[in-house]
Amino acid sequence: MVQVVVNDPIGMHVVLDLYECDPQILDDMEKVEEVLTKAAEVANATIIDKRFHKFSPQGVSGVVVVSESHIAIHTWPEHGYAAVDVYTCGDHTMPLKASEYIIKELKCKRPSIVKLDRGLLFKE
Amino acid sequence: MVQVVVNDPIGMHVVLDLYECDPQILDDMEKVEEVLTKAAEVANATIIDKRFHKFSPQGVSGVVVVSESHIAIHTWPEHGYAAVDVYTCGDHTMPLKASEYIIKELKCKRPSIVKLDRGLLFKE
Repeated sequence: MVQVVVNDPIGMHVVLDLYECDPQILDDMEKVEEVLTKAAEVANATIIDKRFHKFSPQGVSGVVVVSESHIAIHTWPEHGYAAVDVYTCGDHTMPLKASEYIIKELKCKRPSIVKLDRGLLFKE
Repeated sequence: MVQVVVNDPIGMHVVLDLYECDPQILDDMEKVEEVLTKAAEVANATIIDKRFHKFSPQGVSGVVVVSESHIAIHTWPEHGYAAVDVYTCGDHTMPLKASEYIIKELKCKRPSIVKLDRGLLFKE
């Protein structure tokens, strides 16, 4: 029998598919940037860079690069839908708390939340 | 009985945990940036921005923001490990082809590949 033993994962990646959000918020780039920036703080991550873009006629994309990986969002106001990834490394970070904050701020009524362990190393 | 019928997903997200990569490549920011930039082209995505960072003593983080979402990488040369996300929207993109390209270029010997449908909307 093969025994698979892994250490703690290097990172935790929360995959959020957020349905029934507030379309006005999803199309407001400044607000979306504010939410993701604050979310990085809630996650206790250290921001090293961020880029946000507004699409025409609607929609926002944004990535906050943190020392501990990244937080990204892509919005479709026309569907009330936002795809969010909260991916952080290290025991000091709290990606689920950040996810909860984002769900609340986007006024999401139907969130899908999947948590992925990233980087499961075999024990020596 | 509840019938759940969904349309085509809005996006396809390929989650790559790449073990046993070439550590020298993983610590070479210019090479990593070249690989991800080319991967965006292989995916037939349109680059709108990119940011890469080198960590001390080792490791690289990078995000290529494309019109169709993003491609991101975080590397741990000391573990020979890279976490990569190839996430694109639209029928014209080929995220799996881009994933294949990245796996080859990082000389990864043990890839974990998970494909996620993002944004499954209920039919009206």
